Amino acid sequence: MWAITIGDLGEFGLIARISQRLTQGPDVDLGPGDDAAIVRAPDGRVVATSDLLVEGRHFRPDWSSAYDVGRKAAAQNLADVAAMGARPTALLVGFAAPPETEVAWAEELTDGLRDECAVVGASVVGGDVVRAPLVVLAVTALGDLGGARPLTRSGARPGDRVAVRGRLGFAAAGLELLSAERTEPAELIAAHRRPLPPYDAGPEAARLGATALLDVSDGLVQDLGHVAAASGVRIDLDTSSLPVPAVLGARGLRHVLTGGEDHAFAGTFPAGVALPETWRVIGQVTEGTGLTVDGEAYATGGWDHFR
Amino acid sequence: MWAITIGDLGEFGLIARISQRLTQGPDVDLGPGDDAAIVRAPDGRVVATSDLLVEGRHFRPDWSSAYDVGRKAAAQNLADVAAMGARPTALLVGFAAPPETEVAWAEELTDGLRDECAVVGASVVGGDVVRAPLVVLAVTALGDLGGARPLTRSGARPGDRVAVRGRLGFAAAGLELLSAERTEPAELIAAHRRPLPPYDAGPEAARLGATALLDVSDGLVQDLGHVAAASGVRIDLDTSSLPVPAVLGARGLRHVLTGGEDHAFAGTFPAGVALPETWRVIGQVTEGTGLTVDGEAYATGGWDHFR
Repeated sequence: MWAITIGDLGEFGLIARISQRLTQGPDVDLGPGDDAAIVRAPDGRVVATSDLLVEGRHFRPDWSSAYDVGRKAAAQNLADVAAMGARPTALLVGFAAPPETEVAWAEELTDGLRDECAVVGASVVGGDVVRAPLVVLAVTALGDLGGARPLTRSGARPGDRVAVRGRLGFAAAGLELLSAERTEPAELIAAHRRPLPPYDAGPEAARLGATALLDVSDGLVQDLGHVAAASGVRIDLDTSSLPVPAVLGARGLRHVLTGGEDHAFAGTFPAGVALPETWRVIGQVTEGTGLTVDGEAYATGGWDHFR
Repeated sequence: MWAITIGDLGEFGLIARISQRLTQGPDVDLGPGDDAAIVRAPDGRVVATSDLLVEGRHFRPDWSSAYDVGRKAAAQNLADVAAMGARPTALLVGFAAPPETEVAWAEELTDGLRDECAVVGASVVGGDVVRAPLVVLAVTALGDLGGARPLTRSGARPGDRVAVRGRLGFAAAGLELLSAERTEPAELIAAHRRPLPPYDAGPEAARLGATALLDVSDGLVQDLGHVAAASGVRIDLDTSSLPVPAVLGARGLRHVLTGGEDHAFAGTFPAGVALPETWRVIGQVTEGTGLTVDGEAYATGGWDHFR
């Protein structure tokens, strides 16, 4: 008994199988199957972001199920939309794979993409399937600002407080465990496989009057360094304020400062803003340049896709 | 003297180099550099489409320059947007490549993407760069309907005429020449390297009252077969009406019927519509199912990405 492969089905058979598993939400005027999809953009502007995920580099099929790869690929793009203060509406997914890939793998991937979209009310509205020697996923997410001012990286001002909502360091600690062939703590490995971005932190930060916002994908130090550079300010993080739960282990503080992929939301807020307790103040914006930790430069060895 | 590679520059150096070469048009509220781009969508809906292009399968670096790969990758997605009757506004581009790729190759690719966008007034607004063992391009195009009714594949009605605008078979004939290591006719090889979609045929077809429209990417027979299936009609093509210029050679008719990648626009129009001479009537919509050529079934051996 052989498993059915996507080469057996062919391009159009595979597209039919995948499309059957998708559901289209109220923002979708036209879903998969035409030259292009049509998605509502009531704000009159559309927020758009794209990521590529390459097998062996961004995910390993022996470490993550197809379903988890789908959840994670969707999550990292939906989080980018939310980090502009927008509501995600749609995903387009390019799927390149070898013909010997099992159809079941592609179906579970689709389910993961669909289910992560459902968390925020978005839909997979289109994409492309092609042959390649390894699996590559190309995910584009769209979103609607609903009349809100977009939260960019360039708005931080001296005097602002830096605050974060969501987990930090969990995914990085989980990846370290998998690399060491360990299976516990399961919570950390689960965090590597499937991030849990606090999506509503984006629109919430917009309502609270945030001056800048991003989702932490490459590590707190590296990503807030981009905010400091784009805003022309200095950001100083206070390690005594950082959440470093014991489960993160001996290297917990380093994972919190440099680990990406949890997609926590980090923002800057004017000093007078009363932050809900879901947000944790972790630093300060001052005059100057660069990112410091307890007043000192911090060597991240941060993630660079080509190094 | 070694050429600089993208591995030398690193992810952020490469992004800075690429971004410098781009220009942002009037539809762009926020271009590259943040979590997401922001593009105007005055219609209140956004048209969105995505394609993946894999080195060795969709392009060969020894047959096409990086500049031409960029032009073609942009063109095929911009044409999909135009084929909905929309005006293309923006492109997002994911670029995966080995670290030993020369920076100059990535820069020329960027120039090609930018220049093809400029043909229609669109802009490259964002994307992603990652490492991979081979070059993969993921292109997403966005567009605005400007209040027009979208032209889908499902609207063809018995009694409609089938008409085409743009070249057919040129790119396929050019690919055949390259495969045979021939260099003439140069016009055909150029057509393979860089399609010339008649972008304004999309909005024009909408104004003329087209009932269905697509751009021919996988071949006339295969693509109009999708229109017949989606519309629940039969489409019959009349070979005596097809444009088969002598330059296409002995297999000209076959290239015209089955060759993709020229991105001509094929549509269906109610019988009473007076078509401008840029459109050529090539067939008829009737009751029934399927696609026929001179009343007979036609075996295309059409393009399937997994076969």
